[in-house]
Amino acid sequence: MTQYDYDLFVIGAGSGGVRAARLASSKAGARTAIAEQQEIGGTCVIRGCVPKKLLVYGAEFAQSFRDAKGFGWTVEWARFDWPKLRDAVQAEVARLSGLYRQNLDKAGVAIVEDRAVVVDPHTVRLTHSNRTVTAARILIATGGHTWRPETTPGQQLGITSTDAFLLDELPQSIVIAGGGYIACEFATIFSGLGVDTTIVYRGERILRGFDHDIRAHVQADLERTGVRIVCGSIIEEVKALPERRKLVTLANAMRLETDQVMWAVGRVPNTSGLGLASAGVAMAENGAVIVDEYSRTNAPSIFAVGDVTDRINLTPVAIREAVAFVETEFMGRTAAFDHADVASAVFSRPPVGAVGLTEEAARAKGHKLKVFRTTFRPMKHILAGNEQRVLMKLVVDAHSDRVLGVHIAGVDAPEMIQLAAIAVKAGLTKAQWDATCAVHPTGAEELVLMGEPISHDNEAPA
Amino acid sequence: MTQYDYDLFVIGAGSGGVRAARLASSKAGARTAIAEQQEIGGTCVIRGCVPKKLLVYGAEFAQSFRDAKGFGWTVEWARFDWPKLRDAVQAEVARLSGLYRQNLDKAGVAIVEDRAVVVDPHTVRLTHSNRTVTAARILIATGGHTWRPETTPGQQLGITSTDAFLLDELPQSIVIAGGGYIACEFATIFSGLGVDTTIVYRGERILRGFDHDIRAHVQADLERTGVRIVCGSIIEEVKALPERRKLVTLANAMRLETDQVMWAVGRVPNTSGLGLASAGVAMAENGAVIVDEYSRTNAPSIFAVGDVTDRINLTPVAIREAVAFVETEFMGRTAAFDHADVASAVFSRPPVGAVGLTEEAARAKGHKLKVFRTTFRPMKHILAGNEQRVLMKLVVDAHSDRVLGVHIAGVDAPEMIQLAAIAVKAGLTKAQWDATCAVHPTGAEELVLMGEPISHDNEAPA
Repeated sequence: MTQYDYDLFVIGAGSGGVRAARLASSKAGARTAIAEQQEIGGTCVIRGCVPKKLLVYGAEFAQSFRDAKGFGWTVEWARFDWPKLRDAVQAEVARLSGLYRQNLDKAGVAIVEDRAVVVDPHTVRLTHSNRTVTAARILIATGGHTWRPETTPGQQLGITSTDAFLLDELPQSIVIAGGGYIACEFATIFSGLGVDTTIVYRGERILRGFDHDIRAHVQADLERTGVRIVCGSIIEEVKALPERRKLVTLANAMRLETDQVMWAVGRVPNTSGLGLASAGVAMAENGAVIVDEYSRTNAPSIFAVGDVTDRINLTPVAIREAVAFVETEFMGRTAAFDHADVASAVFSRPPVGAVGLTEEAARAKGHKLKVFRTTFRPMKHILAGNEQRVLMKLVVDAHSDRVLGVHIAGVDAPEMIQLAAIAVKAGLTKAQWDATCAVHPTGAEELVLMGEPISHDNEAPA
Repeated sequence: MTQYDYDLFVIGAGSGGVRAARLASSKAGARTAIAEQQEIGGTCVIRGCVPKKLLVYGAEFAQSFRDAKGFGWTVEWARFDWPKLRDAVQAEVARLSGLYRQNLDKAGVAIVEDRAVVVDPHTVRLTHSNRTVTAARILIATGGHTWRPETTPGQQLGITSTDAFLLDELPQSIVIAGGGYIACEFATIFSGLGVDTTIVYRGERILRGFDHDIRAHVQADLERTGVRIVCGSIIEEVKALPERRKLVTLANAMRLETDQVMWAVGRVPNTSGLGLASAGVAMAENGAVIVDEYSRTNAPSIFAVGDVTDRINLTPVAIREAVAFVETEFMGRTAAFDHADVASAVFSRPPVGAVGLTEEAARAKGHKLKVFRTTFRPMKHILAGNEQRVLMKLVVDAHSDRVLGVHIAGVDAPEMIQLAAIAVKAGLTKAQWDATCAVHPTGAEELVLMGEPISHDNEAPA
């Protein structure tokens, strides 16, 4: 391999790229470089999972102060200071980015702070320093970015989630376009911090792709806590008003005056101008790099992992894809990450955890089902006078008794779903769930105490 | 069966007794009565799990107010009012007790508010109304009660956990005798609410029976947050001082002045004066009713479930034993509850969740082990400046790769352990845990990301 400058050149120092580079260098002894044009850490660390969850924590305190009253506490005066939280979050993000850099250094990875563009299957050009580097293998790990509706008049007056972390001040009101997890999480953050929040979503109900009961539950709870949700419409125009106010006009002719507009209407893979076409790399219509189960593109020396491949756009998935890539290409162990039964979480109010098939998806696949569902107010909420409820749902194959899907909306759902995912991934049956003794008093115990199904199909296989 | 007044007479309306009575009456059509001399609900509802956890929630707010600062919040003035919390908890307890009563009524169970004493294998005497009742089967479900060290001078000056729920006022200081879960939970409650708290424990480290790493972790964290823990000694004497102060003298000659002393040195089965000996029922030295796997005593018509049998003294276990008893005796389905791999939780600071074998127990059983352990500060604590860490530990059989035990001390441990218990009960391997994709950012994800064992025995089976 010595005819190339590197054994591996990684483009993009996010979760997938960093893991691939570290592992290839430190465990496989590959001469490795990684290029990044922004901060090291990628979407997750810099403008996604991490700062988002910290803001959610910040917003939750407001409810906590209200809850405290039922427990004998009087909180006379609680004041929130947005710049303090924003700066604390950014300081933590910078600390983590620094740790990522240190870990790359320790692993012996060359860090190239530049924009890298693919020139041919073994060559990248660094656009700022204007030099070329060669490598035996190139890994595309450039992630994705927030999409803006470029043709909507006034769209440039709005922000994206990336901008939201850095706001000078908290708006008094915000209109969020979109109904996916990012829209729901930011609605949770903003409304939790006292911002008058409206979601405008094209579909008929938020959180498309999640189980219908979860979607209804979260939508109802966001509305209960003051988020206005306008479904079945989109923003057609944004107009500037005096004092940085905006007038938002929807397709249904509704007009909303607001301080801020946020686009959370999707993300797109970062492949524009990356030179992939010149290297003959095939891409999907949305710009995603097309890869096989080993993260191989159609160019034998070029690979891609993470959001840029638009498979399951989650940090741990990118990491698993990266590990499998390095094991296969550098460590002589052919490995592919199995994308089945990957759990996910939404840090909304209430939070969501989901793994496996939704009821709809299971039926679409021809499963006959037993469906179990329960809803209850957690013990803490009762004393707090907090009306938020938990929804739990198990989707079970009526024939095999296998638990195909677990769907939770409520306190601690993300923590619960991580462990539930072990059971689902292993294909355990409802009888095995039920054989597990409850832990009392917890919320999770309800998951092993679901006695009677709410629906039970004829058990004959489809 | 018509020669008896009832098909089933249950003594004790706690978790086990109530479940057995409801099920026998409503599902099996058994003519059922239940006797209770105190409030309906038993230890769990009235003076255990439920009020304890509500007090823990109440105490946690103090830390929450401190944590809030790192998230941009200024809480100027938070005042705690013990009578408000106490009364709110008692109101909730009363509400739940009422629900238990309603459910018994609905199920058609006769509620006998009296003390029932066994006269012979088919007869109980109700001591207050002084009448006798006959039944085909008698179920002993009388639970247990807090033990006091009767021979310790001045012991009557101290309270038990039962009294702690009803205190007129919060003491400024308390000495808690004992190092088990009740001692740790009340130390968490009292110190969380600002009471100067000391634990005095006979053993060398609190939480005997839990994994040694968990014990060390919780002990260190209680100490870090201001609980004084004196191990290797016991209270030898309590003396009254003026103004309701107490002077506590330990076996190690240490003297402690305190406002309050609490005994949390164990619980004993409620069989004293129950007439079991007269019916020929065999009991253990500590008064526990001896039963087989079907909860049968040596008297063919007398059965016992729950804490009075001193097997695993947990609410869900009593319930499972009760269900198995009714299924076997009244529903024609021979069923025994499997006591293996029952998870448990301690609502201490930090909380604990444990299931399966500790490292010590696994070694004692001859397992060769791979042990995985990680410790970290949760994301929320970093911004909060809260030094509390999470400890997670997996005890894995080196030969079979089966996860034998899971031990967690940290935020949300009780919720996590409930789901982890499904995987442990089903005998899943470490490889199956590792095949599960992480959910980011959560605490629980660390449980599926434990790469390298901290120790790895030779894999040959013992």
